[in-house]
Amino acid sequence: MVNAEDRLMQWLRDAHAMEEQAATMLDALAKRIEHYPDVRAKIEEHLAVTREQSRRLQSCIATRGGDTSTIKDMAGKMTAMGQGVSGMFATDEIVKGAMSLYTFENMEIAAYRVLVAAAEHVGDTATAAVLQGILEEEIEAAETVGAMLPDITARYLTREEATGIEAKR
Amino acid sequence: MVNAEDRLMQWLRDAHAMEEQAATMLDALAKRIEHYPDVRAKIEEHLAVTREQSRRLQSCIATRGGDTSTIKDMAGKMTAMGQGVSGMFATDEIVKGAMSLYTFENMEIAAYRVLVAAAEHVGDTATAAVLQGILEEEIEAAETVGAMLPDITARYLTREEATGIEAKR
Repeated sequence: MVNAEDRLMQWLRDAHAMEEQAATMLDALAKRIEHYPDVRAKIEEHLAVTREQSRRLQSCIATRGGDTSTIKDMAGKMTAMGQGVSGMFATDEIVKGAMSLYTFENMEIAAYRVLVAAAEHVGDTATAAVLQGILEEEIEAAETVGAMLPDITARYLTREEATGIEAKR
Repeated sequence: MVNAEDRLMQWLRDAHAMEEQAATMLDALAKRIEHYPDVRAKIEEHLAVTREQSRRLQSCIATRGGDTSTIKDMAGKMTAMGQGVSGMFATDEIVKGAMSLYTFENMEIAAYRVLVAAAEHVGDTATAAVLQGILEEEIEAAETVGAMLPDITARYLTREEATGIEAKR
């Protein structure tokens, strides 16, 4: 028997670790990109949003009486996933990178749907509102990346078939 | 310089490995669930769809002249991701399991968006049509799981706070 408040706190910490992991992944991804400047710009834009989300989560944790100095949690799991899907340094790196980003955004959407429900379950409407705001940002980000996938694919395949230019990043 | 046809074949094989991995994951997930029969039923339903998708992909590969006997490919990567996100046996297993499923469905959506664009790029409209059909099924599956997340969360938290019943599966 675990208190729903304690479970919410655990999930808030998980989400904070997830955003920190997202920032690391986005930063690494953006720095690798050379020939797709519009993709790089979108990633850098979302990196700034991600850092701000991480700060808002820390504030939710603090408001609910949690200690934000000990946040590490599910970093291992997230790293495993990042390695599993990132596809960085693959020959089709830009395509796999965009797919990973879309997948990661959707993992975040799942996490925030759970978190909003948990905050509502314990009657913390202020926290639920913050989480709902982040959820909407993640949905927008996922839609943006998803809409870019066909174009990135076509550009990658065109570059790959051309002679003397790099396609993968 | 790689031929776009060869790249499409590689991605079709990757997708086939992904669907095989999905079937393994869905089967394991469904078998673990005890107290959420509606969730279990949805997963079993999607398992049947997934097996059918795997067969359709094999048929696409064969039609394009590929060898379906050597399909294994990115199994390692997929396994890493499965381990990273599945959350199976965690104390909040049903919630993490549903989140993983949503994430996996969305990874599949990303893969099929890329595949449809690649098939169109090489002018293979028949393959593109099959892939578009699978993409639409995956979008529907992701929406179904996504819509279930708040309810699963609330039921899990309620069960977890009750005495003498199991919540996690």
